Amino acid sequence: MPAESYRVTFQPDGRSVFVLAGTKLIEAAGQAGIILNTPCGGEGTCGKCRVELLDHEPPPSEACLRHVSAKEIERGVRLACQLEVDRDLVVTVPERARMFDQVVLTDGTEHTVGLEPMVRKAYVQLAEPTIEDVRSDVDRLKAALGPRGRNVKVALEHVRELGPMLRKDGFKLTVVLHDNRLVKFEPGDTSRAAWGVAFDVGTTTIVGVLVDLTTGLRAGVASRTNPQIHFGDDVVSRIKYIEDHEHGLAELQKRIVNCLNDIILELAGEANIDLDCIYEATAVGNSTMTHILLGVNPSPIAHAPYVNVFRGPIDVGAPALGLDLNAYTNVHVLPNIAGFVGSDTVGVILAARLMHNEDVCIAVDIGTNGEIAIGNRGRIIVCSTAAGPAFEGARIRHGMRATEGAIDKVVIRDDVEVSVIGGGRASGICGSGLLDVVAELLRAGVIDTSGRILTGGALPATVPDAVRKAVTTFNGQPAFVLVDGHASKTAEPILLTQRDVREVQLAKGAIWSGIRVLCSEFGVEPQDVSRILLAGGFGNFLRRSNAKRIGLLPDVPTPRIEFIGNAAAVGARMALRSRTSRLEAARISVKAEYVELGTRADFQMLFMESMMFPEA
Amino acid sequence: MPAESYRVTFQPDGRSVFVLAGTKLIEAAGQAGIILNTPCGGEGTCGKCRVELLDHEPPPSEACLRHVSAKEIERGVRLACQLEVDRDLVVTVPERARMFDQVVLTDGTEHTVGLEPMVRKAYVQLAEPTIEDVRSDVDRLKAALGPRGRNVKVALEHVRELGPMLRKDGFKLTVVLHDNRLVKFEPGDTSRAAWGVAFDVGTTTIVGVLVDLTTGLRAGVASRTNPQIHFGDDVVSRIKYIEDHEHGLAELQKRIVNCLNDIILELAGEANIDLDCIYEATAVGNSTMTHILLGVNPSPIAHAPYVNVFRGPIDVGAPALGLDLNAYTNVHVLPNIAGFVGSDTVGVILAARLMHNEDVCIAVDIGTNGEIAIGNRGRIIVCSTAAGPAFEGARIRHGMRATEGAIDKVVIRDDVEVSVIGGGRASGICGSGLLDVVAELLRAGVIDTSGRILTGGALPATVPDAVRKAVTTFNGQPAFVLVDGHASKTAEPILLTQRDVREVQLAKGAIWSGIRVLCSEFGVEPQDVSRILLAGGFGNFLRRSNAKRIGLLPDVPTPRIEFIGNAAAVGARMALRSRTSRLEAARISVKAEYVELGTRADFQMLFMESMMFPEA
Repeated sequence: MPAESYRVTFQPDGRSVFVLAGTKLIEAAGQAGIILNTPCGGEGTCGKCRVELLDHEPPPSEACLRHVSAKEIERGVRLACQLEVDRDLVVTVPERARMFDQVVLTDGTEHTVGLEPMVRKAYVQLAEPTIEDVRSDVDRLKAALGPRGRNVKVALEHVRELGPMLRKDGFKLTVVLHDNRLVKFEPGDTSRAAWGVAFDVGTTTIVGVLVDLTTGLRAGVASRTNPQIHFGDDVVSRIKYIEDHEHGLAELQKRIVNCLNDIILELAGEANIDLDCIYEATAVGNSTMTHILLGVNPSPIAHAPYVNVFRGPIDVGAPALGLDLNAYTNVHVLPNIAGFVGSDTVGVILAARLMHNEDVCIAVDIGTNGEIAIGNRGRIIVCSTAAGPAFEGARIRHGMRATEGAIDKVVIRDDVEVSVIGGGRASGICGSGLLDVVAELLRAGVIDTSGRILTGGALPATVPDAVRKAVTTFNGQPAFVLVDGHASKTAEPILLTQRDVREVQLAKGAIWSGIRVLCSEFGVEPQDVSRILLAGGFGNFLRRSNAKRIGLLPDVPTPRIEFIGNAAAVGARMALRSRTSRLEAARISVKAEYVELGTRADFQMLFMESMMFPEA
Repeated sequence: MPAESYRVTFQPDGRSVFVLAGTKLIEAAGQAGIILNTPCGGEGTCGKCRVELLDHEPPPSEACLRHVSAKEIERGVRLACQLEVDRDLVVTVPERARMFDQVVLTDGTEHTVGLEPMVRKAYVQLAEPTIEDVRSDVDRLKAALGPRGRNVKVALEHVRELGPMLRKDGFKLTVVLHDNRLVKFEPGDTSRAAWGVAFDVGTTTIVGVLVDLTTGLRAGVASRTNPQIHFGDDVVSRIKYIEDHEHGLAELQKRIVNCLNDIILELAGEANIDLDCIYEATAVGNSTMTHILLGVNPSPIAHAPYVNVFRGPIDVGAPALGLDLNAYTNVHVLPNIAGFVGSDTVGVILAARLMHNEDVCIAVDIGTNGEIAIGNRGRIIVCSTAAGPAFEGARIRHGMRATEGAIDKVVIRDDVEVSVIGGGRASGICGSGLLDVVAELLRAGVIDTSGRILTGGALPATVPDAVRKAVTTFNGQPAFVLVDGHASKTAEPILLTQRDVREVQLAKGAIWSGIRVLCSEFGVEPQDVSRILLAGGFGNFLRRSNAKRIGLLPDVPTPRIEFIGNAAAVGARMALRSRTSRLEAARISVKAEYVELGTRADFQMLFMESMMFPEA
């Protein structure tokens, strides 16, 4: 019997998620990829995570009363960290409540903190030449651009345009600059129309975010399944395809670019903007994805010693990639760190502000490869662990992606309660559900610390009858029934097999051993780390106490484990909005020390140990 | 009767000139456009201007004995500043004797001083990746390039090439760098093949110099008449053509580029080098020429207030101009200063090292427009004066260019002696001859300080009979017979008319008033200037004492007036050979103060005065 779950819809994003009753609203937002700004760590003491509820006015919490005005409370404003979901909700999340979108009110106008895109537009009136002022056209243009104009580089193609353009329009025009490079003249005043797109090119999913570069605000989000999926689920099979086919690279590059073009069209269409006003795109991805996106053969990544061809960053005109954007549109691909630690990890470190803290934090992006970073202001160390695809539902008997019909939460007390995405019948189990069931069975004593599913007399007496009855066998190995055949969508029982538990052990062992190596390199105990930041799709769906229970994460107080959403995409967006962030990304890429786990003599032993589940 | 003149041929340039007996060899070299290195000002005290005579061993001068070893003297080495031409000569001028080509001997190898071209080639062996060294291909390439490698920019097209190239060739390759930009990979070791071409794009003549960028040495020189000459002699008529014809700019641009392509082919053919190994070209020219070369409409230059579209410098890939060079070949056009003071003047200031001296020097490039620069380490002021084409032989009754048949020297004592280029019969008079005859007639008292040609009783009694007889009339105005009809090639007398004298007055008045304005702006008296440097074709042929006599130049001791040859082209070559020179050119362009003579209330008065000839 599915546990009670509710639909929470976030506006203006229009994104909905299903959560179990009692889930904090701030976690629900995290699941929807909307990361709220919580400097206090969700303790209710900072008052930053203010959202507005539609059609529902729950009694305000004490913290809410302290931080929110009576007038706002009347309007439905509440603190997301204090509110537990107990019904379907529609919630408006203002930009100011979102992480990395902090805005401050000055002089009655909203200014986004740190908005300093590489693209600047300026509508300028030039001094007309006189016999006393015989500066060249280019010089007077530079002067009109102010103190920074002096260093502006004007390429010959624009020099050719300038003379006639000035003399036609009374020496007035709009100038588009990319950093200190002039990229375009536009007649009239078009200075308010400037857009950019930030991409996260994942192995599985590609996300694009449209950003208004004059305000820094997000104007739209669109995503697609990476169409390269037809060439293999993982990066290695895609590299193999490239190696085995003469035009493989071009083929895969085209697929990815077509997908980006689709996303651009959707974003521009929905925001009703002209493609000519998109002046820059940024992108993050794992090394293989960005190599392919850029048309660079990724073959060396797949073979020992697994090196990248470039570390980056790379700047290139959109047409060189085949993007349906203008020649003046720059594409900036954030830098990599090492073979399997790509610009997506740089994006995570950037978004997590790892380099801004005195305290030591860990950021984990769990996927087929788990990228882990530890660090503070002084030092950053990263590694990549081959976690395998278990948490993405692959190689699991009834595993599936986190889509409709997937069991995404499991609670085992007197009985086995599951939550199914979409609320209908279960057809499989996704990563977060898998983590839940293993943790709950550990708690119930059905699985022991070595990972064995206990059967018959080996089961502790404390195991409730309903749970005890769910223990069965499959292919001669113990297994556990999550949903009976008569309750499942497939009419077959949905099982957790012994083999599934082993896959979970391999996956969690990889992450946990990676964390342990990084902590040891950094000289800190895992439990002493001040915050553990979970990025990426899976990270945002897992239950933190369960992640600790199976030993995926160290045993720190739960509030120290934070969801930071699709931090890689946030990093791409930060680099689009702010040159300082872009420079920081470059510094991260250079500064981050890469630990190659394979070269450590003690790693195999550590990995073996890390596969064990912790004692209760 | 032509005065005795001799042919002097300079090797390895293969250039010949005719000079009057008694001309210093160093001046003859100057006429041939070969400027010798004379830090001592031709006093015989520095011993730098050592040349080698073939088939002739004149007795060595005292200075020669002091500076040249006995062994060298035996080989025919002499100081060019001490030797007067008294027969036909063939002279070899070593690179080390040439200005701006100073070489020093270190460790037994010749290194050219200040050789630091923007183009560098390096043959590198990269460390191969290992599991302990997982740097990206690009990072290991940068490391192999040494300390400066870190800042090298690698564009995506080269990133794409790099991976396969390294793995095919054992991680060895030749890298071509332009400044800190990687422009090309070449398999194997090609580091010794790097060439560049420096162009001087004159209104009348285009010169190209091929330079070996690994040694800095000149490998060839070629020149052509500017094919735009069909569209008008001067820049204004060419601009008019562009304004009157829809495709005029493209047409004129194509002409100039075709000419450059011809020169490149000739240079490459003679030096037997591959066009692929030409990595850079530099160019100077007046503003109109460089605007047209770059495809920038020069129309604003022709209309008050006469501004340039760009001041520059401009860097652009060769294909964007239509040059038959590779895409990686950069074309660097040196910067302009103002409307009629182009990059050719920047080249002159650079070559004359005006910014290197504490002493105040003047550089004058006499052409249809006379560009004048005054300055020292602290300050540079420039102007352009409309000298008119008199010194190029235009608007003069029997004027012609300095080619075979032109009277290029005139001496008047008891009789009228003329030297004719080529040694045959005279068919006209060129600029230097014109200057001579006016000066000589002033000395003889045939012309008075107001410029009038005196006749009959007005002639002083001291005028020799033969000279007195040469005074005649033409169209009712006084005139002077240089060569009788029976001695000329045209069978008509070659005359200096009163109108010709007026043209000379206009031309010299323009230059002289420009010099006076600049000296006044600078706060120095013209006669106190420490050196006057004469650049360009005409400057190298005139007789300095005569230039002073007519008041073209201030009355300073003659050794202070120096010929610096085609200094504009030397400037282009310096910018090709040395990034320091290129930066200096940019500084000159920014720092030079432009004086617009037209805006000065006192200029008309000054110009009127300047047209008068000085008292004896």
